[in-house]
Amino acid sequence: MSTRNLADEELTQAVLSSFSGCRSERFQEIIQSLVRHLHAFASDVELTEEEWFAGIDFLTQTGHITDDKRQEFILLSDVLGVSMLVVGLNHRKPSVATPSTVFGPFFVEGSPRVANGEDIANGAPGEPCLVQGRVISVSGEAVPQAHIEVWQADDDGLYDVQHADLSEPRGRGHLYAGDDGRYCFWSVKPTAYPIPADGPVGKLLANSNRSPMRPAHIHFMVTARGYQSVTTHVFADGDPYLDSDAVFGVKSELIAPLTRHQPGRAADGRDLDVPYWSINYDIVLALDDASDMSGRAGGSSRR
Amino acid sequence: MSTRNLADEELTQAVLSSFSGCRSERFQEIIQSLVRHLHAFASDVELTEEEWFAGIDFLTQTGHITDDKRQEFILLSDVLGVSMLVVGLNHRKPSVATPSTVFGPFFVEGSPRVANGEDIANGAPGEPCLVQGRVISVSGEAVPQAHIEVWQADDDGLYDVQHADLSEPRGRGHLYAGDDGRYCFWSVKPTAYPIPADGPVGKLLANSNRSPMRPAHIHFMVTARGYQSVTTHVFADGDPYLDSDAVFGVKSELIAPLTRHQPGRAADGRDLDVPYWSINYDIVLALDDASDMSGRAGGSSRR
Repeated sequence: MSTRNLADEELTQAVLSSFSGCRSERFQEIIQSLVRHLHAFASDVELTEEEWFAGIDFLTQTGHITDDKRQEFILLSDVLGVSMLVVGLNHRKPSVATPSTVFGPFFVEGSPRVANGEDIANGAPGEPCLVQGRVISVSGEAVPQAHIEVWQADDDGLYDVQHADLSEPRGRGHLYAGDDGRYCFWSVKPTAYPIPADGPVGKLLANSNRSPMRPAHIHFMVTARGYQSVTTHVFADGDPYLDSDAVFGVKSELIAPLTRHQPGRAADGRDLDVPYWSINYDIVLALDDASDMSGRAGGSSRR
Repeated sequence: MSTRNLADEELTQAVLSSFSGCRSERFQEIIQSLVRHLHAFASDVELTEEEWFAGIDFLTQTGHITDDKRQEFILLSDVLGVSMLVVGLNHRKPSVATPSTVFGPFFVEGSPRVANGEDIANGAPGEPCLVQGRVISVSGEAVPQAHIEVWQADDDGLYDVQHADLSEPRGRGHLYAGDDGRYCFWSVKPTAYPIPADGPVGKLLANSNRSPMRPAHIHFMVTARGYQSVTTHVFADGDPYLDSDAVFGVKSELIAPLTRHQPGRAADGRDLDVPYWSINYDIVLALDDASDMSGRAGGSSRR
């Protein structure tokens, strides 16, 4: 098909045709669908050339602010609901397994290894918080030695990577549950926080009069041999933003009570001379098996 | 509308609803349409989480390779036909005016000023080429003192900004047509060339088994008081890629013969001791007036 003198639908057909010989059939399906929808978008709104330039500039700024500590494209996908849509597409079937939610932009490879029961705060500001529970199967049996990645914002509402002057990880780590499925770590009480306002995505939310707030949560990414991985959050019950999450990530099954305690001996035997908090949450993993229908694409882990 | 426990269409509705109070009505129209089409795309192809990550990585790489000399997002828009679609949407009505085509990724602000008749090559490799014509109105009258930006690839198929070791502009410049509308400059003969293959867009074309070639052309951006600006190319007639342009930019009205001459005195009086080429092309501008229907959005200039 000639690429000359094309207008509107003809042009779209020519672009689709140019993508008719891709190396991978799946890639071809994706890129052709993307072309169809992008063209339909531009046509539907009759995008002006000035608006097209503004879009190019927005993507350029988003690329330039993204580095190994900040992922503004993921943030963009999150606030447009695309991330949560993809989570939904890949974890469709009802199940008692812990549901997935958005991965978010703040995961960092190579978090500190901590022993079961240790503290991941590493000096992060905030009141102490004991997080514990079990990793179990959908039938309630212990999943031994699950690998658990956790990361969270501190009492200032910031992840470690958002503190410009900080080179040490804080409020993140990975541990292994015991043979009985039990896991336990100390951290700080999670707080609600605004997603970063100083980049293009923050400006997009401001121009939309949208709240940047996310309800308090702790990120979990749990993997265990023979089970589907799960990337999710545990949200703090009672948070005022549970019904207005800027990234649409809240599911009722992921909400757990955050309990306040007076100074004294905590459930794990640690003595505290300040008030502290606790969260109990069991992670339920589906079998990584064709006979288990709780997930379509083998979990949501990157690995 | 609560953002909790949303799946599929419900989620899309919630995201649309979150964008229902934008500061600008036009921004709201655009972002809501974008959300609708992006969600439909992800749903239609049942995008997996791995594919979503690949998309995030692709955009990140595209952002990181983009700088003040390279615009990979424009290149992406070009090869997906979005740029040409937007050109079409904004210059819909038939007219004898010179049609627009893609802006492309190689424009640089602040090109050298040259006098009418001077050489823009500045050492760019290639056989000399005399480019001349008139800037006229749709009724054939001279448009005096039009501002003409021109830029082009050299005989190696590269723009100056693609030569890593080059700090001087080559093969680009701006000049003013005379009061009689006549413009004239020397440069080098334009050649067909592949769009950059060393970035994410090059990989996308390779994975699609698509040719990266563009037919030989010279970029023009012409502005004149009282007229609609035009951003376009003049293509070399006979080029083998006129019907398979990687960015879908060719229009028949933009093709001009490239004539070879033996050494001697050129049309502008310059004496050449090597063979040279010439292109004649008249730029026809539409009035910048509501009564002229040749364009919808006031031309395609950035300025």
